[in-house]
Amino acid sequence: MTKLRPVCILGNGLIGGSLMRDLAAHNHPTFGYTHSNAGARQAAADGFDVIVDLEAVLRRAEDLGALIVIAVPFDVVAEMLDAIAQWAPSCGITDVVSVKAPVYALVHERGMLERYVGGHPMAGTEASGWAASQTGLFARAAWVVTYDYAVECSEGSERLPQEWADLFADVCRMVALVGAEAVPVSAEAHDEAVARVSHLPHVMAEALSIVGDHGYTLAQSLAAGSFKGATRVAGTQPSLVRNMCETNAEPLVKVLDEYIDLLVRAREGLASENPTMEWLAESGYRAHVRMNARSGARRESVSPVAISSRPVMRVHPGGPGWVKQLKQIESLGGRVEVF
Amino acid sequence: MTKLRPVCILGNGLIGGSLMRDLAAHNHPTFGYTHSNAGARQAAADGFDVIVDLEAVLRRAEDLGALIVIAVPFDVVAEMLDAIAQWAPSCGITDVVSVKAPVYALVHERGMLERYVGGHPMAGTEASGWAASQTGLFARAAWVVTYDYAVECSEGSERLPQEWADLFADVCRMVALVGAEAVPVSAEAHDEAVARVSHLPHVMAEALSIVGDHGYTLAQSLAAGSFKGATRVAGTQPSLVRNMCETNAEPLVKVLDEYIDLLVRAREGLASENPTMEWLAESGYRAHVRMNARSGARRESVSPVAISSRPVMRVHPGGPGWVKQLKQIESLGGRVEVF
Repeated sequence: MTKLRPVCILGNGLIGGSLMRDLAAHNHPTFGYTHSNAGARQAAADGFDVIVDLEAVLRRAEDLGALIVIAVPFDVVAEMLDAIAQWAPSCGITDVVSVKAPVYALVHERGMLERYVGGHPMAGTEASGWAASQTGLFARAAWVVTYDYAVECSEGSERLPQEWADLFADVCRMVALVGAEAVPVSAEAHDEAVARVSHLPHVMAEALSIVGDHGYTLAQSLAAGSFKGATRVAGTQPSLVRNMCETNAEPLVKVLDEYIDLLVRAREGLASENPTMEWLAESGYRAHVRMNARSGARRESVSPVAISSRPVMRVHPGGPGWVKQLKQIESLGGRVEVF
Repeated sequence: MTKLRPVCILGNGLIGGSLMRDLAAHNHPTFGYTHSNAGARQAAADGFDVIVDLEAVLRRAEDLGALIVIAVPFDVVAEMLDAIAQWAPSCGITDVVSVKAPVYALVHERGMLERYVGGHPMAGTEASGWAASQTGLFARAAWVVTYDYAVECSEGSERLPQEWADLFADVCRMVALVGAEAVPVSAEAHDEAVARVSHLPHVMAEALSIVGDHGYTLAQSLAAGSFKGATRVAGTQPSLVRNMCETNAEPLVKVLDEYIDLLVRAREGLASENPTMEWLAESGYRAHVRMNARSGARRESVSPVAISSRPVMRVHPGGPGWVKQLKQIESLGGRVEVF
C-alpha cells in the first residue's frame, strides 16, 4: 500500500478531533487548525498539534504536500477554500461536511475540482467539540467518498488528471486507516440518502422532544427506551442541526413530504371508527427487517468478530474502467478498497 | 415491610417472563400461565413453573391468595378477566398492559374494580416472547400504578375497601422488589402521556423505516446512529404495535396532530427561499434538555451509583389523606414508597 501523505485537519470538533486522534493512534503524521484559542489549548494539553494560525498551518501543509481535511461547519467552508487557494495552492483537499452538492458547488466556483474529493463519515454522537472527540468513532462506519469530477471527465472531453486519482486513493487510505469503510457515492445521491437516514431523524428528534415536553413532568417521568432512542440526537447543538438541514433543504423537503404523508395516512386509520394501524405497522416492520439486514456491521454466528455486511470491490484508481466500477459499487451501497 | 403475596402471572412474553425471572431471582414464590405449549416447555426448561391449564393456574392462585398479574396483549384481557371471575374470585388483580383506560373499562364492566389496581412498566425492548425475557429489565424503570378507583370512592359516597388499599400496597411492593419505581397515575393521564412518549415513537419508527427503505441499498449502507436509534422499535412484532396504538387511538391521534403540525411548520421553513429550521432546532434542543434533566436515573458526579431523579413520597395506603398524596405525586411524575 502506498504511503498516505501527512494529514492537515482544519477544525477540531467531534469529527475533526476524532479523526486526528485515530490518525495519531496509528502514528500517522497529523496536525491542524482551530479558530478557537480554548480549543487549541485543550488539544495541546492532550498532546496534539493544533494551532489558531490558519496561514501557518496551510503553509506547512503546502511544504509537506499534506492531504487537507476540511472539518468545519458548512458556513465556514468557503472561507477555508479561499485560504487553501492562497496558502496551500497544490495540496489535495477532502472534507467531512454532511452535505456534498453544496460543498461541490463551492469548490467548482473556485476552480478547485481537480484537487478535491468529497467525504462524509456516517458516524458521530449528539455531543460536539474537541472534548467529545474520541478514538474508534469511525470503526466500521460508512465513509462516503464522492467521485463526481471523475464521472464528469469520463463523460466529457477533459482527461482526468492522475493527481485526482491519487488523491481519491489517498482519501480511501485515510478512511481505511481509521477503521471506516469507503463508500463511493455521487454528491446528489449522497444528499438524498442522508436526508432519509440522517437529516430526517434529526428533524423527528426535535419535534418529538417538543411533543414530549408538552406532557410536562409526568411524560418526562414515563419516557423510556423508545423515546430516548428517538430523541437522543436532539441533544446536538442547534446550530449544527440547522447547518445540516438548511444546506440540504431540497432533498430534505422531499423526504419530509414522504414521511408526513405516511403519518397522515396512519392518523386517518387511527381516527376511523374501528381504529387501525395495520398498513403502517406491517409495512414498517418489513422495511425495518430489510434495512437491518444490510446496515452496518454484524456478527457471524460462530465468530466474535463483527464483519462488514457491505459488499467490497477492489479498485485501482486511474486504472481502466475504474469509474464504471465505482458506479457499480455505489448502486450496491458497497465499499471500495484501493490498490 | 409486609410480605408480598405469591404472584401468579398470566402470559409469559417479554414483560410477564421478565417479571417472573426477577421475582424468582429474589426467591419470591411465582407461577404462571401461557397459552402456548412451546412457551410452557421453554419456561419449564429454564426452571419456571408455567403451564397451559388456565383453570388449574387460577384455582391455585385462589388457594394461595396470590396477586394475579395479567401480562397478555390487550385483545385477550377480557378473556382473562372472565376466567379470573370464575376460578379465582377473591384474588387481587393487576396488569402490565400499555393502555390503562380501556383495561379499566373492561374491569368496570365486570364489577371487579374493588380488586383491581392497574399497572404499566415503562420498560421493554423491540424483542418479544419468553426467549427475550431477562432479569433486570425493570431496573430504575417507572412502573405506572393507577388509582382511579380510590379517587372515585374518595369523591363519591362509597367507602374505599381496605382490601383495595392493601392490594395497592402489594403492587407497589412487587414493583419495588424488581427494582422499578411505582409512579401513581390516573388511567386517562397515563394514556395521554404514553401516547406522547411511547406510542408516537413507535409510529415514527415505522414511518421512518419505510422512508429509509425507499432509499434502497445506498440508504441502508449509510444509515448510522440517528437512524438506528429512531427505528429500533420498528423491530417490535407488528401485532403488538397495533395492539398498543389501536387501543389508545384517541390520545394518539391528538399527539400525532401536534407532531404533524410541527413537521409541517418545519417543512414550510425549509421550503422557503432562505431555508430555515431555526424555530424547530432551537425549541427542540431546549425541550430535549428539559426532558433529559428529569427522565430516568442519573449518576451523581462523585458516585458511581445511579440515583433516581424522580421525587419520592412515602405513603401509607388506606391512611388519612393518602389519595390526596397520590395526586400530588402524580403531578410531579414522582414515585411512591409504601409503608
